[in-house]
This record gives sequence, C-alpha cells and structure tokens, in this order.
Amino acid sequence: LQMPSVIVYGGRGALGHAIALHFKSHGYRVISIDVHSNEDSDISILVDVNSSWTEQEKSIMDSLSSKGIEEVEGVFCVAGGWAGGNASSSDMISNADLMWKQSVFSSTIAAKIAVKHLKKGGILTLTGAEAARSGTAGMIGYGMAKAAVHQLTKSLADKDAGLPEGATVVAILPVTLDTPMNRKWMPDADHSTWTPLSFIAEKFHSWSEKKDSRPTSGTLLSLKTNGGITHEEQH
Amino acid sequence: LQMPSVIVYGGRGALGHAIALHFKSHGYRVISIDVHSNEDSDISILVDVNSSWTEQEKSIMDSLSSKGIEEVEGVFCVAGGWAGGNASSSDMISNADLMWKQSVFSSTIAAKIAVKHLKKGGILTLTGAEAARSGTAGMIGYGMAKAAVHQLTKSLADKDAGLPEGATVVAILPVTLDTPMNRKWMPDADHSTWTPLSFIAEKFHSWSEKKDSRPTSGTLLSLKTNGGITHEEQH
Repeated sequence: LQMPSVIVYGGRGALGHAIALHFKSHGYRVISIDVHSNEDSDISILVDVNSSWTEQEKSIMDSLSSKGIEEVEGVFCVAGGWAGGNASSSDMISNADLMWKQSVFSSTIAAKIAVKHLKKGGILTLTGAEAARSGTAGMIGYGMAKAAVHQLTKSLADKDAGLPEGATVVAILPVTLDTPMNRKWMPDADHSTWTPLSFIAEKFHSWSEKKDSRPTSGTLLSLKTNGGITHEEQH
Repeated sequence: LQMPSVIVYGGRGALGHAIALHFKSHGYRVISIDVHSNEDSDISILVDVNSSWTEQEKSIMDSLSSKGIEEVEGVFCVAGGWAGGNASSSDMISNADLMWKQSVFSSTIAAKIAVKHLKKGGILTLTGAEAARSGTAGMIGYGMAKAAVHQLTKSLADKDAGLPEGATVVAILPVTLDTPMNRKWMPDADHSTWTPLSFIAEKFHSWSEKKDSRPTSGTLLSLKTNGGITHEEQH
C-alpha cells in the first residue's frame, strides 16, 4: 500500500514548512516545490525564479512526472511574499512584477498540478489575503496579485474549470501569519492577533481526510485571529 | 493658450481609436500609446511588447517627457485583449501571461502616467470586465487580469494611492463591445446587446469636462446594453 501524498508549493516558507512537518508526522509522503530545497520533505522540486511562467510550469510538471508522482490527496499552494508601494513609488511596478510571480505563477501552476495529479475528490488550496478584498493603496502590486488569486479560486470551483471530479478548491485569506520573519520585523505588534501556522496545517489535514469538513468549493476563507483564537469567515 | 490634451493607452485598438477621434473632433490634442502607431492622434508613442514591465514603464515615461507632455485632462487606458482556456488547456498559462501583459502592464503604467501627468481633479479610466466580477472558468487568465484591474481601481481611489489631488479613477466593465473584430468573429450574435464605442467615447468626454458627471472615484462601472440602449451599474 502506497503512503498518501500531498504537494506543498512553497514548502520551504514558514507556512509551507509547518504544513510539510504536520503531514509528515501523520504518515504522509510530502513533495515540496520551492526555490530552496526542503530537507524535511520526501521529495524536493526546485523552482528557478529567473525562468518564465511557462518555463516554470514545464519544469515543475516534468519533475513531478520524472519522480513518478501519480495521485495526491492535496495540493497546497502557500507560496507568496509581500512588497509595498503606492502608485507614486518608484518601485511600484517592479514590486508588482515580483508579487505576480510569487503569488500568481505559483497559484496557476498549482492549478495545473491539480488537474494532472490531484485525485478525484481531492483538495487544492491557494493563498489570498484578507486585505485584497478591498483596495490596498500602500501595497498596490500585492493587492492585484492576491485579487487575481481570489478570482482564480472562483474560476476553478466551476465544474467546467478542468479540475478532477469532486475536487474542492479553497483560498485561505490570512491577515497576518505568526511566522519568525513577521516576529522579527514587527516585534512590538500584538502577536495574539496573528494566525498560528499550526491552525492552517491542521485545517489542511482535516480537509484532506474529511470531505465534509471542507468549505464549499470556491470559498475565500478569511482567517481572523483575536486573543489567540482564529475565526473563519466564508466569502 | 494650449489645447487641452488627453492620453489614450491602447489608442490604436477599436475603442482607443474611437476615443481618439472623438476627442480630436472636440478640439483636444490626443497622445496615443500603443504597439502600433495611430496616425489620427497628434502624438504616437510606441510600446515594445517584448520588453519587460519595468522597461515598458521607463520607455513610455521617457517618451512622454521627451515629447514635452505636461498636464493632461484625462488618461484613458483601453488596452487589452481576450484569450480563453480553462485549467486543463495546454495554453492556459501562456494565455494568462498574455492577458496579464495586455491588461495589467498597461493599467499600472497608466496609473504611473496619471501620477506624473494628470492634472489635479483629472480623470483616469481603466478597463475591467463584467465577467471577471465572478469566476471565469473558460478564460482563466483573462479573468485574473481583469480582477486585478478591478482591485487596482479600488486601490487608486484611496487618498494615499499617489494620484493627483482630486483625481477620479473609474474602471469600465463592458460585457461585449461593438467592434469590427467582434462582428467578424461573432457575426450571428445579437449586436443590439453590444455596447457602442461612441457611448464610451462620449462618457469619457463628459467625465473630462464635467466633474459632477463622474461616478465616485473607485467605481467599477458595468456597461450593460439591451436593444441598443446602454445601462450603467455601479459597483
């Protein structure tokens, strides 16, 4: 009997690493896709950030095939990043370019991976942002990229989108995640309003194993944490 | 006394051309930005589609400066295109790449142009799509790009977005425009449900001259045409 497998896109980021470790500890084989290799995963597929969108797609799809990956229980795309800039910032466009590559290249390639490797009735998650549900004047490129991911989630939930039969797609919309990097850059923030990575890892695990624990396909799931407790809001 | 000026980004497309001719006929100096030169405009600035996002930005901003463009009444971004493809289409990602370049490169560079060249209280328009207000399973890249333009419009309406004081930004969200290309490809469609280009050209002219004719800044303005009559819906 083959071990159940999941793919974590962005598996070397703080959230991706937490998800990989969580699934490993529950007996899953974890395939990480990231710009850096993840020694805690069973298989690590590297992304060349300097190659184009279609080149990244081809390289990742080829790697999955050559490593013999067939069906997985879940595809979790948690790749992304953050950069600011309003319309008058000199780096607004270069930051928008970076945000698009980090969030939208990864989310669309995750969708392609799900088309080919997700089992029927499997789970695909993408990562949006609560802030991008409205305007984000001080972080224009970030907001556009996340808004695109939100709309992609709605597209993929359609029965004609091309995902495997019965699959569910959900975007999580965090406010702020409790990561080492965020603690480093915002040491004086109220950390009890930050969403613990374990909350998301456990949620993804539950969605993988219990179909009735999932939100409806196409849901944008806002994660709002207060006093250390995370509440979900569906959009 | 200098003639009033407007910038039409996508000035050689069917809609852009109609807008350019309309403003010309009302005594405006028209600056066209497009991949092809527009002989009916006063100044034509060319875009190299093979150059990167930041290279296009630099080249266009430099051209505007070198041609002595100072303040304009309006910046109208009507560049864009259409391509289909669901997640299982082999060209989904190459089409998403094209859609991003056509709609989002242009919209963000139009925002940069507005920061530098739009007069106080001027008008900036972007072009979204009614379809992208929800999922677009059969045209995934198109939907993401237009959703990004919608969110950009909300961002730019914020007082801290960097646009000139008192400027208004509006995105028009057409369903189908009555263009020669659409008539060619959809000869049997009901053309009385297509929005005439003159409706949009007149709307932009009115918004340029009468501030109280404009929707609130940040509005997504759906244009729905039935029996040849176009109705507006604000979102």
